[in-house]
Amino acid sequence: MAEEKIKKVSIIISKGSLEGVYPGLIMANGARMEGIEANVFFTFFGLEAIIKKKMDKLKVATVGNPAMHIPSILGILPGMSAFATKMMKKEMEKLDIPPVSEFIEMIHDAGGKLYACKATVDMFHLTKDDFCDEVDDIINVAKFYEVAAGGQIIFT
Amino acid sequence: MAEEKIKKVSIIISKGSLEGVYPGLIMANGARMEGIEANVFFTFFGLEAIIKKKMDKLKVATVGNPAMHIPSILGILPGMSAFATKMMKKEMEKLDIPPVSEFIEMIHDAGGKLYACKATVDMFHLTKDDFCDEVDDIINVAKFYEVAAGGQIIFT
Amino acid sequence: MAEEKIKKVSIIISKGSLEGVYPGLIMANGARMEGIEANVFFTFFGLEAIIKKKMDKLKVATVGNPAMHIPSILGILPGMSAFATKMMKKEMEKLDIPPVSEFIEMIHDAGGKLYACKATVDMFHLTKDDFCDEVDDIINVAKFYEVAAGGQIIFT
Repeated sequence: MAEEKIKKVSIIISKGSLEGVYPGLIMANGARMEGIEANVFFTFFGLEAIIKKKMDKLKVATVGNPAMHIPSILGILPGMSAFATKMMKKEMEKLDIPPVSEFIEMIHDAGGKLYACKATVDMFHLTKDDFCDEVDDIINVAKFYEVAAGGQIIFT
Repeated sequence: MAEEKIKKVSIIISKGSLEGVYPGLIMANGARMEGIEANVFFTFFGLEAIIKKKMDKLKVATVGNPAMHIPSILGILPGMSAFATKMMKKEMEKLDIPPVSEFIEMIHDAGGKLYACKATVDMFHLTKDDFCDEVDDIINVAKFYEVAAGGQIIFT
Repeated sequence: MAEEKIKKVSIIISKGSLEGVYPGLIMANGARMEGIEANVFFTFFGLEAIIKKKMDKLKVATVGNPAMHIPSILGILPGMSAFATKMMKKEMEKLDIPPVSEFIEMIHDAGGKLYACKATVDMFHLTKDDFCDEVDDIINVAKFYEVAAGGQIIFT
């Protein structure tokens, strides 16, 4: 058990649902609390988590997730996703898990680095101004591999 | 090609659909069969795979997965997910891929360690009694990084 | 910052939607462009990306992804997925991101290795003939761990 401790994690957040974004944020925050270097790289729909206007409006997906135990035929109703989202946010609040914007700020203040993926930023016609201030840079895959060197890559 | 062999994998299972759970179990089992140390960490909807009452009732997601080739408008019908699930289970059986509960037992008996994520256990108001006996412990992210040290982290 | 550079990535593609397949291809291609060894392992619905008849017909999932900002009740309409797919493909083309078949060819020509997962190939009753020529081999999990040794495993 004399394993060398993990020194660095580079977490990719690729999904834009609430349950798609939180695992990565929780792992990044947990890493910083343990003194592990943490990079978070937002790509594809994961970019939503760092877009100022959207980051606190992420929703739980109620269809396409049988574990929600909501029949798909009900899951498509407009109110269901909003309802499930409200429930999950309430439970997270009880556990002191902050809303996305605060969580991003916490990770950033704790020294975590936040990056947006250049290819998908271009694809969705976004600019640096769309993102929250905590985003350190917009980088491509080559640069990502560079910052991730010497650590673990975790794609979520 | 004189690479050092992989010594340990720590697999995170974060989804609760049948096709979301199996890849992680297959990789954990495959690891043990090769003498690779294996940890499996269940989080968010992935917890369903170790909840006694639910683990053998996981379903295939028929909406939100265009690769199913079921039009979304049909995928929402109540019977579709059950039908697709039955088909996939039948195919898995032919290949000697066991049901979730047996697979978990196999991995555990082969020396794989199974962990539930503390934050999501609390979020869903679960307790140790909800889980199958094979679950070794309920741990937080910090502890996860500790057990994962010296190996590969695979988030599924 | 004198980290040892990443030498190898072994990317698992497990989803069959357009947005499920591209991140893995982009990361594999980016790796080869940086002189990083790249293996891509297609499993479960990810196999669609190397099936000759299907690889260029992958679609964006319009339900089960709240980040699409299409209400689920509209997302199920037959035309929505086709529409979103067309839009995304158009944006990708502008960025010189090639269609799946060309991208696979590019990665292969650049020295990337492509593997299909034996268990799921059997489960879906596929044979080598169903796959594009660039697929190097059909391998099991044990063999995957072998080819992945000495690098990073990235499950997408």
